[in-house]
Amino acid sequence: MPDKALACELPDFHDIEQAAARIRPYVRQTPVLQDVALNDSLGCQFLIKCENLQGGGAFKLRGASNAVARLREQGSGGDVATHSSGNHGAALAMAARLDGRQAHVVMPENASAFKIAAVRQQGGKVYFCPATQAGREAGMEALLQLGYTAIPPYDHFDIIAGQGTACLELLQQVPDITTVITPVGGGGLIGGTALVASHMGVVSVGAEPEGAADTACSLAGGKRVTEVEADTIADGLRALVGVRNFALIQQLVERVITVSDAEIRQAMIDIFRHFRLLVEPSSAVVLAAARQQPEHFRGRKIAAIISGGNITPEDWIKTSQWERNASGSAMIE
Amino acid sequence: MPDKALACELPDFHDIEQAAARIRPYVRQTPVLQDVALNDSLGCQFLIKCENLQGGGAFKLRGASNAVARLREQGSGGDVATHSSGNHGAALAMAARLDGRQAHVVMPENASAFKIAAVRQQGGKVYFCPATQAGREAGMEALLQLGYTAIPPYDHFDIIAGQGTACLELLQQVPDITTVITPVGGGGLIGGTALVASHMGVVSVGAEPEGAADTACSLAGGKRVTEVEADTIADGLRALVGVRNFALIQQLVERVITVSDAEIRQAMIDIFRHFRLLVEPSSAVVLAAARQQPEHFRGRKIAAIISGGNITPEDWIKTSQWERNASGSAMIE
Repeated sequence: MPDKALACELPDFHDIEQAAARIRPYVRQTPVLQDVALNDSLGCQFLIKCENLQGGGAFKLRGASNAVARLREQGSGGDVATHSSGNHGAALAMAARLDGRQAHVVMPENASAFKIAAVRQQGGKVYFCPATQAGREAGMEALLQLGYTAIPPYDHFDIIAGQGTACLELLQQVPDITTVITPVGGGGLIGGTALVASHMGVVSVGAEPEGAADTACSLAGGKRVTEVEADTIADGLRALVGVRNFALIQQLVERVITVSDAEIRQAMIDIFRHFRLLVEPSSAVVLAAARQQPEHFRGRKIAAIISGGNITPEDWIKTSQWERNASGSAMIE
Repeated sequence: MPDKALACELPDFHDIEQAAARIRPYVRQTPVLQDVALNDSLGCQFLIKCENLQGGGAFKLRGASNAVARLREQGSGGDVATHSSGNHGAALAMAARLDGRQAHVVMPENASAFKIAAVRQQGGKVYFCPATQAGREAGMEALLQLGYTAIPPYDHFDIIAGQGTACLELLQQVPDITTVITPVGGGGLIGGTALVASHMGVVSVGAEPEGAADTACSLAGGKRVTEVEADTIADGLRALVGVRNFALIQQLVERVITVSDAEIRQAMIDIFRHFRLLVEPSSAVVLAAARQQPEHFRGRKIAAIISGGNITPEDWIKTSQWERNASGSAMIE
């Protein structure tokens, strides 16, 4: 378990169970799928938990709904603010709107157009910042000066508890899972996942892009690095891992596998081939990790959390660099 | 219930229950999803049964698996043959391969490249024919001369029973559904669906493209028409409704709503906006129908069967004629 000094700021399994009950009216129970041909090619049973089919197209609605519901329980009104590459911002805007609040969202200037539009469609106000950790934090600080309540995207008790409900739901849906693979960006999803998994005796593994491998680097050095110059197609995983999040990962996650953008591209195409799902590059890292290091998974019943599907068909084609040959057969299994 | 003369050739609810047990090892239980914003815009609860996430990307695996398993039970070996716009062909090839058989598939020369490739990837042999009902039947006849066993795509006892398992599973997954909307092409899916729905006191409605409205025309005339000149983007619904299928529709389906290609295009985009799913135009007819005639559905709990997702992102963009504006906001709800 997390060390004592930090434990007071970290959710535990019970908090995640409470979050699940709290957010039930606002989120979808997402499906779990598998494909025989994919299982055969990986040498393991590889289930996907489809949070890309969550409301708003990403798991982020879980954490945002939990955080806003907690504010309401505490009688805390008023506007909320965050920084986000997009999915958390849109989820917070959606949760805030349902609760009669305004959300203010600082977004990096290189955020995807699709995600910027999603925040606005949910009624969120968008503010652009330089695409660095410092830029995000400065933008956020400016909003907090205005008196808004901060709901940061991952380094937050209620956010981590909310994101953990995806893994809780998964392990309730499917028995006998030995290992859960989760994308690692800021660490909200893997933090909550690792809490649930460890409580239930399941191994937790992370998957991170090589171009934003600050968590793998922090683990190797035994200390959280504080700057990352992200260069990866996985736009949802460019953020620096949070303090609470790193503490959870360090203590509860067995390993973090880093994958190249080329491996991510191939995994995007493979997920379409096997499941007919368009997923974000940030989601495809989980399959890329299983392909790269099959020795950790062989013969087991693995589940991977597909974190989001907020990518247009055009951007999916560009990002995956997929080219159909004359027969279209490159796509098909 | 169907009239006596035909009843001997038609499956009943019990046959569909048996089919469900028979095919369980070969098919996925597909998820049922809904979206609050879509429900609000339609004025009803609109659930989608995601057979686009079935193995092979379409409900067709249900019927094909049932038909092949029945051959095995009967000790009937050897090659199987069919005609198909693609999804049934690929499903039959997959089911045949798993059973150690060869599948031969007659396809219209205007079949989608994606679907042709899918048949071949499953080990099926493809034969092209003119894109007419007569062309399909002549091609099929030539194959039967070679001694292969016919597993036609819809006008077949075991196929109808197999396709009916999608609705059976749906009604077991979700209580209190009042109405099921199903695409109408050859009528395999709606035939099986109507059998299950009527047995369980649920209303059955069909959705058919205006450009291949032979079923609506047959219903209006009280007699099955025997030729259709199909002109619609819904490539999976161009076939003429089958004899058994029309008998079931005539007696068990409340109405068949015809929709334009423009309405289908809009529904494809709406399904992506609300669920992040790329679906075939043949699937989108169900939402187009609910949008066009909301008076039949208002205030009810409706389920629509999304029949397939076998379309590439490129073809989806072309077929839906979707253009993203600068912000991407056309896509987003």
